[in-house]
Amino acid sequence: MPQAIEFFFDFSSPYGYIASRLIDDLAARHGREVIWKPILLGAIFKLTGMAPLTTIPLKGNYVQRDFPRTARFHGIPFAMPTPFPFSGVQANRAFYWLDSTDPAAAHGLAHALYDAAFSGHDISRAEAVVEIAAIRGIDRAAVSAGMASPEAKDRTRTENDAAAARNVFGSPYIIVDGEPFWGSDRLDHIEKWLETGGW
Amino acid sequence: MPQAIEFFFDFSSPYGYIASRLIDDLAARHGREVIWKPILLGAIFKLTGMAPLTTIPLKGNYVQRDFPRTARFHGIPFAMPTPFPFSGVQANRAFYWLDSTDPAAAHGLAHALYDAAFSGHDISRAEAVVEIAAIRGIDRAAVSAGMASPEAKDRTRTENDAAAARNVFGSPYIIVDGEPFWGSDRLDHIEKWLETGGW
Repeated sequence: MPQAIEFFFDFSSPYGYIASRLIDDLAARHGREVIWKPILLGAIFKLTGMAPLTTIPLKGNYVQRDFPRTARFHGIPFAMPTPFPFSGVQANRAFYWLDSTDPAAAHGLAHALYDAAFSGHDISRAEAVVEIAAIRGIDRAAVSAGMASPEAKDRTRTENDAAAARNVFGSPYIIVDGEPFWGSDRLDHIEKWLETGGW
Repeated sequence: MPQAIEFFFDFSSPYGYIASRLIDDLAARHGREVIWKPILLGAIFKLTGMAPLTTIPLKGNYVQRDFPRTARFHGIPFAMPTPFPFSGVQANRAFYWLDSTDPAAAHGLAHALYDAAFSGHDISRAEAVVEIAAIRGIDRAAVSAGMASPEAKDRTRTENDAAAARNVFGSPYIIVDGEPFWGSDRLDHIEKWLETGGW
């Protein structure tokens, strides 16, 4: 069984969202699974001294143009979340809570959360995350309690620390057989890597 | 006659070099010319408060791995210049001196300079630039005097100021019919833009 691909992303990351719409099919074409790993880039930026793309002069304006253009390039629906950027901490806690008992359901929830955010919704609030989970048949009270549990909070933090320790500095950040790829614009490289085993 | 594509680049930029090996053929496939515009990103970074990629913690290590990997992805020979990063000011002056009388020769010289730099050579020194020009049949004394002329220095500066005024903040930065594209990883977007007239 070949190694699973690790897909690190922040729910507030536009390029992460774009990759989220493409990575599973890409991996499946090569018989690979994808392990989704939501992170909180804000906490990692504090360690690395980096700043969100959109706050950087000139580059910020450019990426606001490039986000929807890149989505259209891939034929992916796209609207900026409001507010933006936002904290994905509630989404991450819901994800990791669900992941501890049902990874497939957590994967599905992550897709739904990303799709909601990038069709213009605010998923920073716990109530919004619960609502999206409920639409997917997850019990409201259970997810609500799960997100608030010490276990979910701990896992969210330890996963973030583990990502930082592995030099995950951006979103999306994708590791294939130990090889790191940063950015939705490296998916074609990943495809070739999977085809050829590296080059 | 469709508008020429403007290709802004710094001679010390690895992704600029990668784009330099691909952009002319890409444009030719769509009946477009490319106007090459060497810039000095260091001066622009001073205006924008940005820093060279390789000096940024973590990202710097990542791109050192991504540079040769991206070159190999495209089948392009690649070795880091020594020293790196370096100042392209001498190369830019030679380019703009030659461009004022023979744009095609300047274009050819730019290719040769880039290829020399990214096969590991030091093109920061005026003597190295003169040598590379001489190999292309350009008179040593003429290029040497041309590079040192007030006209070449002025043009190098005014072209850089003009690029900065147009928000060119990185390398490569490519403008197609008013639409800006940043990075060698946007060449596939440019190809689609030229095919479709935008999307």
